[in-house]
Amino acid sequence: MSDLKFRIKAESENPTKMKVKARGFEFTIDEPKDLGGTDSAANPVEYLLGAFAGCLNVMGHLIAGEMGFTLKSLKIDMAGDLNPAMLFGQPTEDRAGYKNIEVKLRPECDADEETLEAWKLAIASRCPVCDNLKHLTPVELKVKARQIAVEA
Amino acid sequence: MSDLKFRIKAESENPTKMKVKARGFEFTIDEPKDLGGTDSAANPVEYLLGAFAGCLNVMGHLIAGEMGFTLKSLKIDMAGDLNPAMLFGQPTEDRAGYKNIEVKLRPECDADEETLEAWKLAIASRCPVCDNLKHLTPVELKVKARQIAVEA
Repeated sequence: MSDLKFRIKAESENPTKMKVKARGFEFTIDEPKDLGGTDSAANPVEYLLGAFAGCLNVMGHLIAGEMGFTLKSLKIDMAGDLNPAMLFGQPTEDRAGYKNIEVKLRPECDADEETLEAWKLAIASRCPVCDNLKHLTPVELKVKARQIAVEA
Repeated sequence: MSDLKFRIKAESENPTKMKVKARGFEFTIDEPKDLGGTDSAANPVEYLLGAFAGCLNVMGHLIAGEMGFTLKSLKIDMAGDLNPAMLFGQPTEDRAGYKNIEVKLRPECDADEETLEAWKLAIASRCPVCDNLKHLTPVELKVKARQIAVEA
């Protein structure tokens, strides 16, 4: 199969609020007030968990179909621990991002424990977002500024 | 500073569509029709890019403030290449997730090129989502199934 290219375009509405466009869809990201935001939407690290959950849902259903069991529904609880010290430029030995992400898959299904263990391992190895979190992903940042007049 | 815990709860609406709850906020994830979905929302890997953009926006404004320049607005274009072969269980030597993520930061500001280079490097090192993408993130998957009757 050949590569697919996915794209988004985003624009700040204020220092913490951003509107994101992906194809014909839009979503808004913000920060809660205690992280300096205007609390109008979920925040970036919550969207990261949500993206991961959405990917696990797609993979969970796809692989259940391949394995021939009935997956009636899938609930996912997810949590991660993050020290905001690095983000705020405070001295810390902690990393900037999540130190760990814990995922509980709650399938409603007719599969036995052994089948579900194989299902889980297949999901973990084939889920794109899981791969980008668990392994190194090359990121290239470029800046193209538009200059405005220096304020007096 | 002490760790913060972020959480989401998600529930499938169909095999590709998932509703995600984070605090009081909700968002929906789906897949386009050509990836087997019902095309009602952005897909997981688009949300991953959006989460990253939202985090870069917060960091960009925070660090511009620390550096003392005016950041009037920030636009971000982002794209990534992904081979869906692994996802679909096809033979491939490619990884499951994005092979690379390209980010264009488009600040409207009064900073010179050297300042913007330092700004970019500080963002890259302090942005939580950037850290989770660029470096290894431990992920723990657990399964807790609810059994339903086997279909005849």
